[in-house]
Amino acid sequence: WEGEFFPGIPKIKYEGPSSKNPLAFKYYNANEEILGKKMKDWMRFSIAFWHTFRGTGGDPFGAPTKVWPWEDGTNSLAMAKRRMRANFEFINKLGVDRWCFHDRDIAPDGKTLTESNSNLDEVVALAKELQGSHVKPLWGTAQLFMHPHYMHGGATSSEVGVYAFAAAQVKKAMEVTHYLGGENFVFWGGREGYQSLLNTDMERELGHMAAFLKAAADFKKKIGFNGTLLIEPKPQEPTKHQYDWDAATTANFLRKYGLLDEYKLNIECNHATLSGHSCHHELETARINGLLGNIDANTGDPQIGWDTDQFLTDISEATLVMLSVVRNGGLAPGGFNFDAKLRRESTDVEDLFIAHISGMDTLARGLRNVAKLLEDGSLDKLIRKRYESFDSEIGAAIEAGKADFEMLEKKAMEWGEPSVPSAKQELAEMIFQSAL
Amino acid sequence: WEGEFFPGIPKIKYEGPSSKNPLAFKYYNANEEILGKKMKDWMRFSIAFWHTFRGTGGDPFGAPTKVWPWEDGTNSLAMAKRRMRANFEFINKLGVDRWCFHDRDIAPDGKTLTESNSNLDEVVALAKELQGSHVKPLWGTAQLFMHPHYMHGGATSSEVGVYAFAAAQVKKAMEVTHYLGGENFVFWGGREGYQSLLNTDMERELGHMAAFLKAAADFKKKIGFNGTLLIEPKPQEPTKHQYDWDAATTANFLRKYGLLDEYKLNIECNHATLSGHSCHHELETARINGLLGNIDANTGDPQIGWDTDQFLTDISEATLVMLSVVRNGGLAPGGFNFDAKLRRESTDVEDLFIAHISGMDTLARGLRNVAKLLEDGSLDKLIRKRYESFDSEIGAAIEAGKADFEMLEKKAMEWGEPSVPSAKQELAEMIFQSAL
Amino acid sequence: WEGEFFPGIPKIKYEGPSSKNPLAFKYYNANEEILGKKMKDWMRFSIAFWHTFRGTGGDPFGAPTKVWPWEDGTNSLAMAKRRMRANFEFINKLGVDRWCFHDRDIAPDGKTLTESNSNLDEVVALAKELQGSHVKPLWGTAQLFMHPHYMHGGATSSEVGVYAFAAAQVKKAMEVTHYLGGENFVFWGGREGYQSLLNTDMERELGHMAAFLKAAADFKKKIGFNGTLLIEPKPQEPTKHQYDWDAATTANFLRKYGLLDEYKLNIECNHATLSGHSCHHELETARINGLLGNIDANTGDPQIGWDTDQFLTDISEATLVMLSVVRNGGLAPGGFNFDAKLRRESTDVEDLFIAHISGMDTLARGLRNVAKLLEDGSLDKLIRKRYESFDSEIGAAIEAGKADFEMLEKKAMEWGEPSVPSAKQELAEMIFQSAL
Amino acid sequence: WEGEFFPGIPKIKYEGPSSKNPLAFKYYNANEEILGKKMKDWMRFSIAFWHTFRGTGGDPFGAPTKVWPWEDGTNSLAMAKRRMRANFEFINKLGVDRWCFHDRDIAPDGKTLTESNSNLDEVVALAKELQGSHVKPLWGTAQLFMHPHYMHGGATSSEVGVYAFAAAQVKKAMEVTHYLGGENFVFWGGREGYQSLLNTDMERELGHMAAFLKAAADFKKKIGFNGTLLIEPKPQEPTKHQYDWDAATTANFLRKYGLLDEYKLNIECNHATLSGHSCHHELETARINGLLGNIDANTGDPQIGWDTDQFLTDISEATLVMLSVVRNGGLAPGGFNFDAKLRRESTDVEDLFIAHISGMDTLARGLRNVAKLLEDGSLDKLIRKRYESFDSEIGAAIEAGKADFEMLEKKAMEWGEPSVPSAKQELAEMIFQSAL
Repeated sequence: WEGEFFPGIPKIKYEGPSSKNPLAFKYYNANEEILGKKMKDWMRFSIAFWHTFRGTGGDPFGAPTKVWPWEDGTNSLAMAKRRMRANFEFINKLGVDRWCFHDRDIAPDGKTLTESNSNLDEVVALAKELQGSHVKPLWGTAQLFMHPHYMHGGATSSEVGVYAFAAAQVKKAMEVTHYLGGENFVFWGGREGYQSLLNTDMERELGHMAAFLKAAADFKKKIGFNGTLLIEPKPQEPTKHQYDWDAATTANFLRKYGLLDEYKLNIECNHATLSGHSCHHELETARINGLLGNIDANTGDPQIGWDTDQFLTDISEATLVMLSVVRNGGLAPGGFNFDAKLRRESTDVEDLFIAHISGMDTLARGLRNVAKLLEDGSLDKLIRKRYESFDSEIGAAIEAGKADFEMLEKKAMEWGEPSVPSAKQELAEMIFQSAL
Repeated sequence: WEGEFFPGIPKIKYEGPSSKNPLAFKYYNANEEILGKKMKDWMRFSIAFWHTFRGTGGDPFGAPTKVWPWEDGTNSLAMAKRRMRANFEFINKLGVDRWCFHDRDIAPDGKTLTESNSNLDEVVALAKELQGSHVKPLWGTAQLFMHPHYMHGGATSSEVGVYAFAAAQVKKAMEVTHYLGGENFVFWGGREGYQSLLNTDMERELGHMAAFLKAAADFKKKIGFNGTLLIEPKPQEPTKHQYDWDAATTANFLRKYGLLDEYKLNIECNHATLSGHSCHHELETARINGLLGNIDANTGDPQIGWDTDQFLTDISEATLVMLSVVRNGGLAPGGFNFDAKLRRESTDVEDLFIAHISGMDTLARGLRNVAKLLEDGSLDKLIRKRYESFDSEIGAAIEAGKADFEMLEKKAMEWGEPSVPSAKQELAEMIFQSAL
Repeated sequence: WEGEFFPGIPKIKYEGPSSKNPLAFKYYNANEEILGKKMKDWMRFSIAFWHTFRGTGGDPFGAPTKVWPWEDGTNSLAMAKRRMRANFEFINKLGVDRWCFHDRDIAPDGKTLTESNSNLDEVVALAKELQGSHVKPLWGTAQLFMHPHYMHGGATSSEVGVYAFAAAQVKKAMEVTHYLGGENFVFWGGREGYQSLLNTDMERELGHMAAFLKAAADFKKKIGFNGTLLIEPKPQEPTKHQYDWDAATTANFLRKYGLLDEYKLNIECNHATLSGHSCHHELETARINGLLGNIDANTGDPQIGWDTDQFLTDISEATLVMLSVVRNGGLAPGGFNFDAKLRRESTDVEDLFIAHISGMDTLARGLRNVAKLLEDGSLDKLIRKRYESFDSEIGAAIEAGKADFEMLEKKAMEWGEPSVPSAKQELAEMIFQSAL
Repeated sequence: WEGEFFPGIPKIKYEGPSSKNPLAFKYYNANEEILGKKMKDWMRFSIAFWHTFRGTGGDPFGAPTKVWPWEDGTNSLAMAKRRMRANFEFINKLGVDRWCFHDRDIAPDGKTLTESNSNLDEVVALAKELQGSHVKPLWGTAQLFMHPHYMHGGATSSEVGVYAFAAAQVKKAMEVTHYLGGENFVFWGGREGYQSLLNTDMERELGHMAAFLKAAADFKKKIGFNGTLLIEPKPQEPTKHQYDWDAATTANFLRKYGLLDEYKLNIECNHATLSGHSCHHELETARINGLLGNIDANTGDPQIGWDTDQFLTDISEATLVMLSVVRNGGLAPGGFNFDAKLRRESTDVEDLFIAHISGMDTLARGLRNVAKLLEDGSLDKLIRKRYESFDSEIGAAIEAGKADFEMLEKKAMEWGEPSVPSAKQELAEMIFQSAL
């Protein structure tokens, strides 16, 4: 393969909201400062190698639909390298600085672990070179779900041999992520869960998972990798129940097994909604638990019960997402990874660009809306006012854990029937919408 | 009101599976021993005063439908006492030993807290007398959701006056529960959550909730109440999001705020399914976290997105519920509370009996099935066999937290491609069904 | 009650998008022309009497929270009249021309049907007077769900006496709607469905429902009422299954029983999503079946499984709704009824105005966006281009029903492997968002 | 491949409920007479070739897990024939008389339609021979969803070339089904729907679908195929919205386009629950519309939002399914097709047998329960009694369409407040359970 992979596509530029050019940014202006930081530093966008370069359009009822011109139909090492070059051309044309990968996406499985590792090394060496000085992985991860030997899980497999194999694979993936300058390392436990409780020892499996994650945290320190370890909650699919169901479930697991200081969370919006929560709820839950580390930027379909991994184009949702990010003071060393894929029926090379531009612009538009909201200030004021009765002496005593039931009963008797003002939700919604 | 409340209804007896009598037990035989305990000691059934004696059949689109003959249309103290006598006749005819109540179900709200407390005292004195020597509350609780002043929550209200009022109310409810010999005290936070994140300071509210529950635990000790404090998870309804979403979320909350040793969980099957889990999953999650304290025995409708509180009649679900209970060594001092109500269209007095008999029989049938399953032993054997590779030296090292990634990688290299046997889920399902 | 009901609230005016005044329109400018029609003629807004004047904030777990100053705590005729005057002040201050009502909302139930009818007549006479020359009902309807005798349904009750009673009630409600100059009459079959198939003869009930609706259509003609009869689909709640599940189910019913020419549909967005469809899907389904007659303008919560009847504030959804309306050439003689209520916790009188202003502005904003989309034209062009292969000779033969399998097979053989271009969904989403 | 495909598996026999042999029937006794018919004539079981012989265990996140010993890793014609021999050994050992297939399951796609047809002919000739005198297809169907050229649909593709190709494929599939003595022909429109309304002309697509199905019905008659044409409703997956959403939606489509006499429905339980209905509801809806033609016997998971196609093992659900079948007088010429697959983790050859035995036994147990219910008679009696007020003169007038609103109003006035007895749902549930 000689020359460009995307010959018709220029370097994507910011043209502003009035532009009709699908291959230009209308809201994302990387170096523009918003709320005291450059847009690119708020966003820290990353391309997901798997969706963008390994997504085939296959689904449970359909064969692959995407035939990118640079693909030769093989899973060879040579093809893996060519694909990696396409990845970096894509990254550079889009103007982002980060990428994410699974070990088995970027290099083919070998017949043995040794061969797989060697394949990986070869592709990683090329990636290192292509990264140059300004690009690096937002995070790496190990693919512990595709291979049939992971059918019962990796860390939670009923087979000790699989547990060991998974450990070896994570070890290597962590090493190469470190080598590439990755800023985080992610665990997505797609097979860490159960299909049926009838044949499962859930307690034993959870214990194994904790042991595995403890060993991972130990190994990280051993090799001097300073990146954040992240767990990505998802309620189900492919399993009936995934142990990392949602942010609160994962936080409970981390607390129970003494892993709270070692891990943070990678919140995915589509996973949030599959677990019955809004994305904003999951982000706030992670933030409040001190665990918001990264965002998988995508969206689902409110009427669909599986993971559709669509590019986020909803302005309102993007504004709420950015509200959590701003409250968190940003996401660094995490960022926004586009864990989003083209629809199966979108088969033009340019669709890859259009989708990413649209996703980036939507979040950028969200950030601009948050700036408007904060500058206006009336929503914050409304909230502060709601709770002002707790800014009192007795409120302070309660918040300090010093108000016992006897004292409170005395106060209640003294005060009589309490007053309860309107929550002003419709007003809050009106103010919020006015910033969109 | 003179004489019997349920004149046509005899004391309900066990007549065995071939009986066609709707007013007889076919499976529940209180003193029969199953798996080493009397059935009544496994079940510890309790009647929910609110559904059985205060349920009106009203719904968001419909007026009350139930006009029990003993009701006079008022919410007077006299009526409250008459109703309490009906309750004990019901309990005695049904042959159970426990009941559950909210403070405001059994006695009318007064104009002031003092008056409400005095009303409560009067009814409680009668209840104490009617309990006699063998009946007592499985648990009491405070109703912190019906009154308009709780519209923003009790412990999580934005108003400090409401927080204090709620504290005073719980204090009193705990005192009367203690006085009546109650074995547990429950918190159901129906209004402890949010309707919209736009006008909510979730972090502050969670902090208030923790302070409240801490004060409750302190007060319990102060008055020498040895009952278990229980939190009842529910994902939503009436709020959009309830802070006690499910067992794992509540466990995370308890761990985060240092309350893990003070509280257990009251799992309700209908709440489980509303949160996206099977009831069995929630029971197992509570059990594994050491938190399974009580069960609200009901069921929902798999196609309905709100709480229907139906009597459980599904044999398969009942068997799974009893499997968790048996694994837990029983529920004492907790039990099974029938948090279940007649359908709105069921308006005969005898329907109250039919529904409870059906619910009790279903769980009893579940227990009998569990006994069959355990005696047969093949399901347990299937599970143990699945994990037997962990009963090895390396498995033991892993489970002891002594297997690091280097050692595991060495093993993985040495062992080569791991084998993964069939999970035999269909066989497990066949074995399970054969016990039904 | 003397003087104004809403003393602090002025007549609501259009102030444009930059206004920060919660009591002003920012997008709805009644007489402004958009796409060839005045905004008010596109929207035909209507106030729902039940939510706005009879909504109490009660929910299945909570007592009423709203205590409007003009309410005296009774359900008397005098109170009904006072409330009606408040309604018309509200309508006039908001600047709309239509209202909707249930018979039992506006006048109290009597002890007999005769008394109920007489109560209704008295209030209706006042309403007629207050309507003046410019206001009239968008539609009237009969409340066949609140009274306990409707617990098994009205037209589908198992009791023939209830069927007759429901017929008499609809007869009267239709008469008063006609008298008031109502433009439509609606059937919402909240209780026309089942709670359990175990005790239901669904076929017989459906037959009764058809007979009832046939008799209603006959009666309409008899009295010279030219308004449209509308059925409002809803999947469930309060019943487990409502016979008018969604637009397609209702269309099937109308076709099966020969009622297709007599009825149209009133689509409610919250009902759409409860049935597993987007609101836009239900509108398009109704439109394609020639049945789009009216819209109940509200929204639900994507994470909630019951009817929340919130005011629509989502700009994207509003734009899609207006797209269907514009394609339908408007809704007249139907319109937009605000079947939406304040949150239970919104208890200020001004919240009633804020909520309606917000809902009206959101739909107005949607209409403005549709105008932008149509003027831009690229989305329509994208769709037309997708199907252009059917604008061929063979395409025409297919669409005319003249292409048989032999002919098509011959073509397929001749043409060889068909080409399938990208569906360009991400581009369509980008174009759509650019109009928001 | 020489000799047996399932060497360790004997011909499956009936051993009765006390048998612990996983490879024996405990409830299905083919020639035993129940309710006047042999069990095998009620059930008319069929094996789904695709799941049983082409199911690989692959899922959206995982590679195939099943490596049946007779597979050689190719998709050759020789392999197709070997697989067909395995199919008939399986059928014979299981003791069923019917099978179902997609054209592309049983024979490989060729490079051209001609080659595909020729491959199909070769395999079909072998199947015809292997069928012998007693086995035949319950139904055949064309696979219009796997190939990338069907990504926008077959009959509803935006490309006319694809429409023609689909027509040619259905034509051939219908011919071979006819040749093999198939009793039905099925349409499952997995891709006939939309992913987004933004780029879809739904009305035009629906028109194309109707034209296609009309042409199919014409072709059927032309070749003298007397089998029933069946449409299989499914709400979604792989598309966001499938045009054959549920039974009522499909019935509406058939009525609208004049196809009601040409098609019946193939109801799948897992599709029913995905559309928000119980399986029993969908069966009853199809039955009442005169459209119940066949059942795809499987089940889903109440907590899972995609098609899991599990073998039905729930006794209660099976009893309800059989209740509809018995009310329908059986399903012939339709039957029960096992559209169910092994879990991905079930990888033993014997699991194929265990799963089918379990599914067959469950339905047989359902039939036995229905016999008990009908013999007992109390459930039927309860239902008849509920509606007995319609067995009156006025009831008859209503049901004959002769009761107008004036007459009904007169009756309502005359009768006064109607009485409404209890619906006795809990009693109905108790009676139902007692038959399980």
